[in-house]
Formats: sequence, C-alpha cells, structure tokens
Amino acid sequence: MFEDARADMTDVLGNKGAQLGEMQSIGIPIPPGFVISTRACVAYLKKKELPEELRREILVALRRVEEKVDKRFGDTGDPLLVSIRSGAPVSMPGMMDTILNLGLTDQTVKGLAEKSGSEWFAYDTYRRFLYMFGNIVLGVEEKQFDAILDVQKEREGVRLDQELSVEGLKKVVAEYKRLADMPQSPEQQLFMAVEAVFNSWNNKRARSYRKHQGLPDDVGTGVVVQTMVFGNFDDDSGTGVAFTRNPATGKKEFYGEFLVNAQGEDIVSGKRTPKPVNELRKVFPQAYRQLAEMADRVERHYRDMQDMEFTIQQGTLYILQTRTGKRTARAAVTIAVDMVKEKLISKNEALMRVSTEDIEKILHPVIAPGEQYTPLTRGLNASPGAATGVIVFDPEGAAALGKKGKKAILVREETTPDDIHGITAAQGVLTARGGITSHAAVVARGLGKPCVTGCDGLHINEDKGQCRIGDQAFREGDVITIDGSTGEVMQGELTLVPPSFAAETETFLSWADQVRRMGVRANAATVEGAQQALKQGAEGIGLCRTERMFNAPDRLPIVRDMILAQDRKERMEALDKLLPLQKGDFKEILRTMSPRPVTIRLLDIPLHEFLPSQEELLQELNYLKDFDAAVRSLQEIPSISRVLDPELHVYLPSVEKFMEELTNDKYHALSEKLLREKSVLLDKVRSLEEVNPMLGHRGVRLGITYPEIYDMQIRAVYEAAAELLKEGVEVLPEIMIPQVCTAQELKWAHRRVRTIAREVEGRYGVKVPIKFGSMIEVVRACMRAGKLSEIAEFFSFGTNDLSQATFSFSREDAEKKFLPLYNQRKILQDNPFSVIDRKGVVRLMKIAMEWGKKTRPDLKVGVCGEHGGDPYSIHIFHGIGVDYVSCSPFRVPIARLAAAQATLKEEENRRRGVEPED
Amino acid sequence: MFEDARADMTDVLGNKGAQLGEMQSIGIPIPPGFVISTRACVAYLKKKELPEELRREILVALRRVEEKVDKRFGDTGDPLLVSIRSGAPVSMPGMMDTILNLGLTDQTVKGLAEKSGSEWFAYDTYRRFLYMFGNIVLGVEEKQFDAILDVQKEREGVRLDQELSVEGLKKVVAEYKRLADMPQSPEQQLFMAVEAVFNSWNNKRARSYRKHQGLPDDVGTGVVVQTMVFGNFDDDSGTGVAFTRNPATGKKEFYGEFLVNAQGEDIVSGKRTPKPVNELRKVFPQAYRQLAEMADRVERHYRDMQDMEFTIQQGTLYILQTRTGKRTARAAVTIAVDMVKEKLISKNEALMRVSTEDIEKILHPVIAPGEQYTPLTRGLNASPGAATGVIVFDPEGAAALGKKGKKAILVREETTPDDIHGITAAQGVLTARGGITSHAAVVARGLGKPCVTGCDGLHINEDKGQCRIGDQAFREGDVITIDGSTGEVMQGELTLVPPSFAAETETFLSWADQVRRMGVRANAATVEGAQQALKQGAEGIGLCRTERMFNAPDRLPIVRDMILAQDRKERMEALDKLLPLQKGDFKEILRTMSPRPVTIRLLDIPLHEFLPSQEELLQELNYLKDFDAAVRSLQEIPSISRVLDPELHVYLPSVEKFMEELTNDKYHALSEKLLREKSVLLDKVRSLEEVNPMLGHRGVRLGITYPEIYDMQIRAVYEAAAELLKEGVEVLPEIMIPQVCTAQELKWAHRRVRTIAREVEGRYGVKVPIKFGSMIEVVRACMRAGKLSEIAEFFSFGTNDLSQATFSFSREDAEKKFLPLYNQRKILQDNPFSVIDRKGVVRLMKIAMEWGKKTRPDLKVGVCGEHGGDPYSIHIFHGIGVDYVSCSPFRVPIARLAAAQATLKEEENRRRGVEPED
Repeated sequence: MFEDARADMTDVLGNKGAQLGEMQSIGIPIPPGFVISTRACVAYLKKKELPEELRREILVALRRVEEKVDKRFGDTGDPLLVSIRSGAPVSMPGMMDTILNLGLTDQTVKGLAEKSGSEWFAYDTYRRFLYMFGNIVLGVEEKQFDAILDVQKEREGVRLDQELSVEGLKKVVAEYKRLADMPQSPEQQLFMAVEAVFNSWNNKRARSYRKHQGLPDDVGTGVVVQTMVFGNFDDDSGTGVAFTRNPATGKKEFYGEFLVNAQGEDIVSGKRTPKPVNELRKVFPQAYRQLAEMADRVERHYRDMQDMEFTIQQGTLYILQTRTGKRTARAAVTIAVDMVKEKLISKNEALMRVSTEDIEKILHPVIAPGEQYTPLTRGLNASPGAATGVIVFDPEGAAALGKKGKKAILVREETTPDDIHGITAAQGVLTARGGITSHAAVVARGLGKPCVTGCDGLHINEDKGQCRIGDQAFREGDVITIDGSTGEVMQGELTLVPPSFAAETETFLSWADQVRRMGVRANAATVEGAQQALKQGAEGIGLCRTERMFNAPDRLPIVRDMILAQDRKERMEALDKLLPLQKGDFKEILRTMSPRPVTIRLLDIPLHEFLPSQEELLQELNYLKDFDAAVRSLQEIPSISRVLDPELHVYLPSVEKFMEELTNDKYHALSEKLLREKSVLLDKVRSLEEVNPMLGHRGVRLGITYPEIYDMQIRAVYEAAAELLKEGVEVLPEIMIPQVCTAQELKWAHRRVRTIAREVEGRYGVKVPIKFGSMIEVVRACMRAGKLSEIAEFFSFGTNDLSQATFSFSREDAEKKFLPLYNQRKILQDNPFSVIDRKGVVRLMKIAMEWGKKTRPDLKVGVCGEHGGDPYSIHIFHGIGVDYVSCSPFRVPIARLAAAQATLKEEENRRRGVEPED
Repeated sequence: MFEDARADMTDVLGNKGAQLGEMQSIGIPIPPGFVISTRACVAYLKKKELPEELRREILVALRRVEEKVDKRFGDTGDPLLVSIRSGAPVSMPGMMDTILNLGLTDQTVKGLAEKSGSEWFAYDTYRRFLYMFGNIVLGVEEKQFDAILDVQKEREGVRLDQELSVEGLKKVVAEYKRLADMPQSPEQQLFMAVEAVFNSWNNKRARSYRKHQGLPDDVGTGVVVQTMVFGNFDDDSGTGVAFTRNPATGKKEFYGEFLVNAQGEDIVSGKRTPKPVNELRKVFPQAYRQLAEMADRVERHYRDMQDMEFTIQQGTLYILQTRTGKRTARAAVTIAVDMVKEKLISKNEALMRVSTEDIEKILHPVIAPGEQYTPLTRGLNASPGAATGVIVFDPEGAAALGKKGKKAILVREETTPDDIHGITAAQGVLTARGGITSHAAVVARGLGKPCVTGCDGLHINEDKGQCRIGDQAFREGDVITIDGSTGEVMQGELTLVPPSFAAETETFLSWADQVRRMGVRANAATVEGAQQALKQGAEGIGLCRTERMFNAPDRLPIVRDMILAQDRKERMEALDKLLPLQKGDFKEILRTMSPRPVTIRLLDIPLHEFLPSQEELLQELNYLKDFDAAVRSLQEIPSISRVLDPELHVYLPSVEKFMEELTNDKYHALSEKLLREKSVLLDKVRSLEEVNPMLGHRGVRLGITYPEIYDMQIRAVYEAAAELLKEGVEVLPEIMIPQVCTAQELKWAHRRVRTIAREVEGRYGVKVPIKFGSMIEVVRACMRAGKLSEIAEFFSFGTNDLSQATFSFSREDAEKKFLPLYNQRKILQDNPFSVIDRKGVVRLMKIAMEWGKKTRPDLKVGVCGEHGGDPYSIHIFHGIGVDYVSCSPFRVPIARLAAAQATLKEEENRRRGVEPED
C-alpha cells in the first residue's frame, strides 16, 4: 500500500511507487493504491509465472483499496477501476506500458454508466480499456482497433471520436471484444496486466534505453496499481493544474487553472477556456481549501515551488502528481530569495536553485540611457531586452553568422518550429505577424532573446533580399537594433548596456558574493565601461586594454604619426601628445573604480592594426589615380555638370568650386600630396606586414623595440595615480605586461617601471601603490613561471591567446575551417575558445601556478580571457585555485553566481568525499 | 727553480711557471730559470716593498741558474741575461708586462759583443733592454724612445732599425740612458723589474680583463725569471718552429721551418725564406736529433700534436715553448685516428679531440655527381667545397641576406679584413684577384667556406650592380654556383651533395657510432635523399615529408585537380591518379633504406601551399587582360613586327604564327579559357586564405576534413610495403600523423590505418610490420602525451613548430622583426629556431616524455626538427633521454659525433659527480 512506501524505497518499489508513498505519507490525497515490488518482477521474469502467493498478496492489497474508496472491484453498481503502471527504480519515461480503466467488463460498465449518469462516458471508457488491454496484454495490433473505429465513424458520418453516438460506441466495443479473448473477470484482467508490465521490462525499447543510459538489466520494474479517478465523472467533478507560486513572476500566489467536468486533456486542448484556479473557491469551496492547504504542505515538504495536477471526482479532491515547477528566470530568482526569507531553504540552497543561464536571461541588455534615437516603427514587446545586429531573412543565414560570432537579427514574416536554429543563433527576432504568444514570442522568451512581433511597419521582400521598416528601405546585412521591452525598432547599432537589477536579484547576487572564494572583476577600457563594471558588481578592473584608447578617433591620427615617425625624435613628439590624453583616461577610470584595483595592460596589438589595410590603401590610391584621370578628361569637356558622375558630388561641394580649384592648380597640389602620403603609408603597412600576426611583433616585443611607447604609458599611469592621490582619491593601479615569454622581458619592463616610478614619485612627492604583473598567454611563460614570479606580483592568464598557442589553432581560421567539424565529430567536445580546455590548457595553467607559487607563495592569479565569463570554465578555474576572473561587464553577475556555485559544489564534493576531476 | 715545479702547481707558481717546470721534468731542454711565487706577489702588493728575505731567495736561485748555464749575471766577459715575465694562475694573455735582456749594463754589453762576435747585435740588444726597462719599470713614454731612434735614423739616412750603424746604436743607447736613471747594477735591475711585474697585476688592463672574465683579484701573479737565449747569437745559432705532425694533413711527419743566425720574428716577417725543419739535420745534426727526440717525448707526454718553438744558441738546443698545435679539421680527424692506432689516446679521447665544427668543415658539399654543366670560367681553387647562392657585391648585402637565411655568394675584386662579416654570412666567395694565400682564401679556409680566387674571367661593375663571368652578364641577385675544389664557376643553382668521406673519417665516425646512445636518422623525401642518408651513416629516415612528393612537377597538376575538386568523386579521381605515383615513391625509398625504418609523415602543409599565391594569380590575370588589350590594338596596326615589344617574343614563337592564331580565333578561345581557369583558381585560393597559416588548416586537421587524402597515402604506404615484402625485401615503414593536438585525432587516424591495413594485407596475403606514431609539435599534444601514447608507438618532436607555439613566435616574422634585437639585448641567448630552448621547449618535451612513458614505458622518442642537426641541441636531447634525432643528410655525420660526445660528456660528468643542468 502507498501508505507503507517512502521516497527512499525506490530500489524495491520503483521510483513512481516510492514517490506516491512519500506523497501519501505527508497527507496528500492521492487516489489509493499499492505497489508490486521490483523483486516480484525479477522473480517473475525467471519463471514467467505469477506465484500463487503474489496473487494472494495482490488481492489482499486490493481489498484494502476497496475499503478506502468504498467501491468494489467488479462491482456492477459502482465498480472500482484501477490503472496499472510500471515504475522502475530509475525512471524510464515512456519505455514501458500502462493500462488504464482496468476493472471494466460488460457488467461493470453498466454500473459506471449509471453512477456517472453518462452512458457515453462509460462506453467510451470501456472502449479505451479494451484498446489498451487488447493491444498491450493480448498483442492485438493497434491498426485493427483503429479500423473498427474508423468504420463506425464513417457509418455515422462523423469526423471525431467524441461525435460518435452511444450506440456507435457500443458497436465498437462489441467488435473490439471480437478481436481477442478479452477476459470478463476483473481479477484476471489485473493479473494479466501485471504480467504484461513485468514483461515490458524486457521489451526492445526498454532494453535499448537501458543500454544507452548505462542502467542495469537485472533490477526489474515495480508495478503501481492505483484507483482511477475521473474529473469528467459528473458536474460534481473537475480537473486542473496548480502552481504553488506564480511561475512567471515568482510571486507567492496560488496560480493555475481548472475545468468542471473535464479531463486533463481538455485543459491542454484549448477547446474550453479554463478558469483561474482561484475561482475554484466558488465552485468547489471545500476542495479549494484542501488544495490550498496541500499547496502549502507540498512546498514545505519538497522545499521548492510545485506544479500539481489535481482531479475532483464527485466532490473529492485527488492530487495526481506534484513535481518541481518550471519557472522563468526572473521567477527562479524571486522564488529563491523569497524562500530564504520564509526560512524554507538556506541561502546556499537558493544559490544552487538559480542557474547561470537564468541570470543570463534576466540580464538582457538594454539600450544605453544616453543614446539618442527615433524608432523606425513599433511592434509588440514579445520578449524583453534589446539586441543589435545585421538583418538576416532566413534562419540558415542567422545560424551561419552565429557560427562566425557575428551578430544577426532574424527578420521574418513569422517563425515556425523549423526556424529554431536560426532563433538560437540570432541576437533577437523581429516578425511582421504574430502576437505575444506566437511561436517567435514563446521561443524567444524561452531562450531569453529579445523579440518584437506583430510589427505592422515591417514589409519583407525576401527574394530581393530587402525589407522596409517604417519608411525606410533596408537590405540584408544592414544593421538594426530592436528593443523587445518596448517593441521599438531602430536603424543602426545602438550602444547596449546591462540592465539595472531588480531588488531581489541584487539580494541574490549579494549572497553569491558572500559565498564565493574567487574574485570577479570586469574588462573595461573606458569610464563608461568602468561604471558598468561597478553597477554589475565587479570588484575591480582585471583588464584595461590600452589599445582601445589608442583607437579613439581623436588619438588615431597621433598614433599614426607615431608609427610613421622617421626617427626617435619624431616618435617622441607624437608620444608627447598622447601622454596627456592617456593620462586623462587613466585618471577617470581610476577615479571611477577608487579604491578598487585596475589592471592596466600596456600596448599589446601589433602596430599595423592602427593603420589601414593594404587593400584599403591600394583602393584609395587607385581611386585617386582614376579620379585624377577623370579630372584631366573633364577639363577637356566644355559642359562639366552633365558628365560628372553623381557619386562625385559627395566629394565635391560644387562643380563651380571644383573647376575653380582645378584652374588655380590647388587640386593638383592636393592630389599629389595625397598620393604621396598614401604611398608612404602603403610602404609602412607593407613593412609591418606579418605572415602570422597572432605570433607576431606585438606585446612586450613591441615595447622592447620602441621603449618610448611603454615609457609613455607607464608615465601616464604613474602621473594619473599621483595626481589622484594628491586629490585624496585612493587608487590601486596594476601594470601588466602582455605576451611575456622570457624573464628578461619582464625584468626589462620592470626596470623601466622603477625608473619612471622614482622620477614621477619624486616630482609629485607621493608614493604610488602600484602592483606589477605579467600576462600569462604564451606557453613559454607557463614554463618560466617560477622565474617570472620572482618579478611579477600577479599573473593574469590570457586564456584566449594561451588556448590558441596550446592548440596551435588560429581562432579566426579554425572557427571558419575545421572547428565545427571537430565539434560535430566529437574530436573536441567544446569550442576551446568558449569553454576552457580542461585537459590541455588547464594543465598548463596548473603547472604555471604551481611553479609560480613555489617562488612567490602569495602570487595573485587571475584569468582575463573570454573564459572568465563562462560558468563551466569558472568552475574549473575555481578548482585549480585561481584568485579572480575578469570578464565583460555584461557577464559579471553570471560570473559572481558561477563562482559561488563553484564554491558550494566544492564544499558538497568535499562532504561527500568526491575527488575533483583531473 | 723550474726543476722543482710541476704542472699542478699553477696556484702558487702561475700557469707559465708551472708549465715550464713540467717541461723541465720530462727532460725538455728549456733555458734555465726560476719562478717567484704568487704569494710573494700578494705579500708585496700589501706592503709595496720587496722583503729582504725574498731578495735573498731570488739571488740564491740566480746563483743556481748561473751554475747551470755557466755564465755569471753581470759578468763583463760573458754575461748571463734573463727575461722577466709575469705568469698568473689563469693565463691573462698580453695583460701584464715582460722585460727581456735584463742584465745588460755599459760593462756587460761589451762582453756580449765580444762573445757573440757582433757589436751591432750587442748594442741593439742593449738598446732594446733600455727601451723596455725604461718604459715598463721607470715609466718613460714610448714616444720619447721612438723620437731618439727616428732622429738617429734620419741622421744616417736609413729607413729601418736594422740599417743603423753600430755607432748610431751606441748614440741611441747613450741618449736612452739620459731619459731616466737606468740602474747599472744587474741585481738592482732584477729587483726593480720584479716589482714592476708585481705591480702590473693591478694595472687597468689587467683589472678590467679579470672583471670581464670573472677572475679573482686577490691571487696575484707569479714571476718567471729565465735565461735569455739568442738564435741570432752567431752562425752556430738559429731558431725555428716545429710541429710534431703535419698540421694541414695530420700526417705523422716532422714539420716546420728554421733559420740560421736569426730570431723568431725573422721567420714571421718573411724577409728571409726559412728552410724546412728536415734540413736542420744537415746544419745542426746533433740539435736535430735532439729536437726529433723531443718531438716524440712531448707528444707522448702531452698526448697530442705539439707546436714547439726552439732556439739553438752556440750549438745548444733550447725549447722555448711547446703547446697543443692548431690544425685543420681534416688533420684533426687524421691525428685523432692515428693516435688511437698508436695507442697514444683512447677512442673516447679521440672523439673529444675533434669538434663538430671540424666535421662540418670537412663535409663541404660537392656538386652532385649526375649534374650536367659547363663552367663559365675558372679561377684558383682557394678553399674546397661547392656553394650556390645569389650574387652579392658587398659584404653588408651578404650579411643581410645571411640573416634572412638566404644563400649568397660574395663576389668581389678582392677581400679585406673589413669584409669578414660578409664572408662569414655568405655561402662562398669568388674574387677576381688574389692567390691561394690571399685574404679571401685564408679566411675562407679558416671558416671552411668554398672560395675561388684570382678569377680572370670575372669583371665586376659594382656601381651598376652587374658583372660578367666568362662571356655572360649577371646582375646582383642572379644565382651562381662555385666549386672551390676545382676553381670552376657555373651559372644557376646546381644540386649539391655531401662529399664521400676519407677513410679515417669513416673510421672516426664509426667509433662515434660505437659510443653514442642516441640513434641518428636523416630527413629525406626522395630516393636520392635516401641514398645520401645512407652514405652519411643514417640509421633510417626519421622524417619523410610526403608533401615534397606532391610538389613534384608531374604531381602538382593532379594535386591541384584534387584541391579544386567540386565533390568527393572528383577528388577521388585525382587521388586515384596520385596513388600509384606515391606508392612508387614509397617503394623506392623503402627499398633503398631496407631494412631500416622510414618514418612517413602524412600530408602536413595547408592546401593553399600547392596553389599559386593571390598576388601571382592577380598578376597573371592582369597580364592576360593587358595582353588581350594589346592584341586588340595590334590587330589594328598593319606592320606588327615593328610594334611588338621584344619581351613578347618570349611568349610567341613567331609573329606570323601569332597572327595566324589570331585570325582563326584560336587565340581568343584560349585567352578566355585561361581567364576563366585563373578566376576559378583565384576564388579557391581566396577561400583557402588564412590569417595565421602556421596555426591553420593543416596536418591531421586537413586529414580529418578530407579523409580521402590520408586514405590514399596510408594505402600507398601499405601497398608499397606489401609489394616489397612479396619481393623478399625487408621493410620497416612508420606512419606518423602531423599536428596532433587531441587523442581523438590520433584515434581517428589509427582507425583508418587499421582498416586499410586489413584490406591491403588481406589482398596481398602478407603481414606488414608498420609502426604508428605521432608528431609532437603542438603544445597540447605534450599535455595529452599520456593519452596519445596509448595509441602512438612513437613520438617524434617537431621542434620547429613546437618552438614557434611555445614562444608564440612566428619564425618568419620574428627573425625579420625582433629576434636580432632580442639576441643583441641578451633577452634571448640564442635563436630558439637554431638552438633548442632549454628552459621552455625542453621542459615541455620532458613533461611529454614523462607522461608518455608512464602509459607506454617502451615509447620511442625522436626529434625531427631542425634542432636534430645542431650539436648543442643534440647534447640536450641526449640529456633528457631522446632515443634518436633526425636531420638533413648533410648534418648526419655532425649528429653522429655530437651524440657520441654527449654520451662521453655524460659519463665524465657522472664520474665527476656533476649534476645535469635543469
């Protein structure tokens, strides 16, 4: 009997039986029943015969069920009907057989009809039983049953089963019975059904499932025999679904829906409109009270939000199932936080209840507050968050761009299930048709992608690769921005920032901060980035890329002058102009982050990245030459304006002015000057060209070749820090050297830092508290870690470059050429540039950390590659003792949670004596 | 006294003093003398005063010398003269002072004149003594002495010192004495000179030398006081140099030259022609016999060929110095081998006596026997061996090309000492002037570079960057080949091969083979290469690069078809054509190497390397278009031949034929076809383009993408081996997979090998004994070594790629952009692509070997990078337990010796308890 079963008896009773016992034990009104043990199954399978004793025990149990529900099995007045289900120790969903409505015979069906007041219901139920029994127990093919039903429907001229007449059903029943020797004794039915479930343990489906899942073949299945209850028994019956809390918002409120005189499938089908569960209070007040009490009870028992299926038969409430309820990401956080407040769960449990994917979904980016824009049009706000990307009309295109790491917005009439790969790969979805429950909306919400649907202002001409949004024409590849929170669609790329947190998210993440061992910093190179970093809870900046500052429009011309300098003097002149600008950057970032650490990486990228490409320059040169030739021929033609290409108007304010300039030779001088300049630039670009730029003249190699550049940067850091200190602003800058592969390089850089430190500190009269460290992104640096840490106070693993070097993969090339095939063929499980490679790169990291700490036991170790924001990688980093990760501000909250979960998981493993994986 | 001194007393007596004692002890007739100890020097330097006791001891020793030579110090009849030399425990050549002819005074000079029979000799000697003593002991400036001498020479109207009259010398002596207070007591002279030598320990030169060499400052110098002997004393005197064996050939013969009545400098100056030392037999028969006996004695004592300086004074032989004689590389081998036969030294000692540089010098390449050529001209065969390279007229150009790894021939009128960097960098030297003892010849021989001098057929116009050789015009950058063994100069690049060995080299290297632990294989991809490998003593082929076979002119079009294939079927067609060709290659190589192992590496390089470059194709396309346009305009001009650019003649057999083709439109069809083909090719090339080709789509990554290619290669290996086995030829092929970074890749390749093995072995009915292994050239492979060796039976370190990945240096870029600076600044000691990086790459190798052998203790480990032929790297590889190295056939003999020396060095270190470096 269920009342004797408990959740921890799955071995003997199977999972389903044990769970039913557990529910029963806490007083949940489940339809009564009992379980036949797995041991009986194993014994049966050996002899292929139900032992007499087992038969007796089954009947004894059945008697007790009869007593509980006050019905008799085989009673022609009010017959007890039961379901027979398999239930293995480990759930094997859909693998084995189930028989419902067992106990119906030609006699009992009449009692059912009378009691329920519906002959149709009774015969339909009988028909269904015969179908299942005949098929599963007696092996009659399904199509034989179907044929009989189809013939009858044709006879009556109806399309649906429900439209059949009672007489028709009776005819069908009669014909079904003729298909096989259907036993008219309920007890015989029961024994045969139990045998059939036992046998289903060894059917082909079940065997291959177990093989696939690595489950043992010799444990057998339990059999659950349970009273049938019918929500469609009469008007005093009904059925419904209830959540113990709102699964959308997480709010603590009774949530769900129900239908009177209906079966579960009536709710799903949508034929009848279900009512909110609260209205149950009016219809079945007692059942409602009981249900509400049950909701409270199951939550307290299972310590999580529950999703309950219930049925009311003739006024009596039955809970058919309760399970942990699915919820949105936002609800997950709210429920976790609330349950801690309600003392239902601990903070640590709460932290394990919300996944990093949930946090990622909550943190849909939004359009930066300062952005100025006018929407092109507006649709329905179907899934929150903003997204920007190029227009793509087909899912394949979106998927292809996604693989390349490009951002796309899938723009479609409406989406279908076939489009799922495109939606997954896209940044967001924009559809012309469909509501907020359309396919696109539902899928996008599930994936946490911004989505705008039902956008009337959108007209797509896919064949031409064009569309209109509002009044404007776009082609595939043009960039737009959508805001799924407002439904707005904008032209071009708007700056997106992470959203502000809801209060409970703040609370939740603050708990993560209390738990985690690893620090979380952000990668940021601007004041705005630093502000975002703070807002997302970063404890500092782990990577401030100074080349970003070089690339700013007001700097680039000076940087180019520096590169094109003919000698040290010219180079120094350019650097002298850069110094105050860079100092200003550092000052504002350090001020924003005060008193937190800011790790400033000196220039890393090769110089040619600051110059236009050869192709660009060649094109420009050719253009200049062509233009020159065009001008010469123009001069020979009297009526210029007729000949002039409209494109040229862009370059020329007016034809008259143009001709004027031509006549006074200004043009020629200009043209020649330009040609000369571009040629010089082209020569420089050619001289800087590299066969393998990833392994080229960059990082500290560049620093050593042009010491003036690093000197300027070091001086900018020191002066910025010194000036802030004099203002009373606490600062903690850290200088980090990129691409280090020998101790000599680091010593060289350290000497320059000390020299400039002495000079600046002397000049300002303050002591600047700077730390000095090394990027570890070259394999040799790992091998030399013990030597490097003599000088470096911290290591920061640049896992992007380190992964490239470890695999000898160029990321750009590999992701285009062979990584997809490698992942598909399982030669590599993951893309090592997204998920850290545990077996290779991490081993190198461990060696580097071990050797580095041997020399300097208090060496700080961080990770500032892209992997610093990936939850799985964060677990790995935690496991090898990394001190902090640094990632994009967007991913800081994810990292905070992942780091906390890693700590908790480690503690749990320690408790359970689980060794960490190598 | 020398007789009390021994070689192991250098600490107390200084090196020179101890060596003199050693010579004395084995009965070599050295001029008698004694040594003042370094301790006396240290004591003196503290007090700056010669203690009374030391003075007494010096005089006692001097008395004993007087007795030995039967002359008296200060004797006016036949005075004893001595030299005073410094001699520190560690030799400091030229750093401290020497005084000769001490003991001459106004009185004793007369006795010297009388005894030698030459007043001139006596006063010249006195003059020299005064100069040295005045300068070194009394601090008179050299120019003051020189001025006096010059005035006297002017007075007498002579140019050389030797032309002065006796009277003139006497005047000079008188004036020299006036420059300072020259002591006329020989004993006072002696004490003052000793003090001066003691003080010279602390002169500026000596101090800075010690600092530079890391020598201690507090040990002091010894002082050697030795009887002067004069080869120019009279006609019964003479001087000479003798080698105990021929230093050019190594032949065991008494070798050297002498002059009667002459000083050592007379031999060097070349004024008088010395006579061969054998003629001494006639002139001074007794001295000759004694000298010959001494030659034998010193060789037996020092166990190496000696270079002796001797002087005969008045019939008595004195050996002034004996030291290990310099010798040519060829002589080094011959002497080492002969001395073993003579039981003077052991084989192991012989192996340490010849350097790998010597072997390298002996192994000058020669022009391959099969090459057909006609010399342009012929000069003098100044330094043996052949070389090929581009013509460079200036040493700077040669040095610049050398840095880029390009081969140059320095072509010059004649060379001067300023050109040394160019000669060092060049492959060989060709000069228009100079004999076989000219600067170019001597330097080239020393460096072991081929050289042709005195080439009358060479006329250089350096300003125009042109030259004529024989009847032909050349420009800088054109390729020539010179043969320094014949003096011939050829146009273009001829194939060079290593020379055949002299018999003693064979013997010598066979001893190396007996000693060395590491195997030595060669890298070869052709039958010719395999033959060379065998000839040079390789024990197998360690790297057979299959792409070399793909690049052969008869294969390349098929390979291109394969790359351009639209589908698998087309690709298979091309591969089916390649299979028999590749099988043929393998068969011949395996047959040549039978029964030795041949490691065949499957295709490694990216596909685009088989296609022309984008630039080439664009140029071709442009050319085609331009040509097309030119043809069109040509057609409109009646007289074609006048317009046609002479360059076009190269492309067109004749103008008539050309026009004919134009008229029948053949040309247009061809032109269009070409344009189309080139465009298709260009598209493919663009699609294969990579940002970082070194880290790109190559090796096993390519194999997995296009399995048909590896299948074809594996099949070719198996079929070749099977066919040979059926012929009864023993074979040992090894299949090696390049660029492996995961165990899955290796498993994949191994599955294909097994599948094809079964198929081929079944078909041929033989079992093919193939080994399967992995290149280890990706860092991750090192980290996964323990997993890889589950499948791989051997590892072969590709140290070129592994070094690139470990440093994150692209070799091509690094050597151009920053490696020279890194070496110059000592950030890196060596170029890690020439000399293996002990601290980084070798650590990775050690980890890989340790982990690999944990799984498979009998794992074979080889090195097939360029480092496999570098002696220092070979020592390192030996130290970490590598089983074999594989290098270019040219370097196999070097590797054989280096491997032997590594073994011997290791044994010696073990004996001496020296720990290997980490």
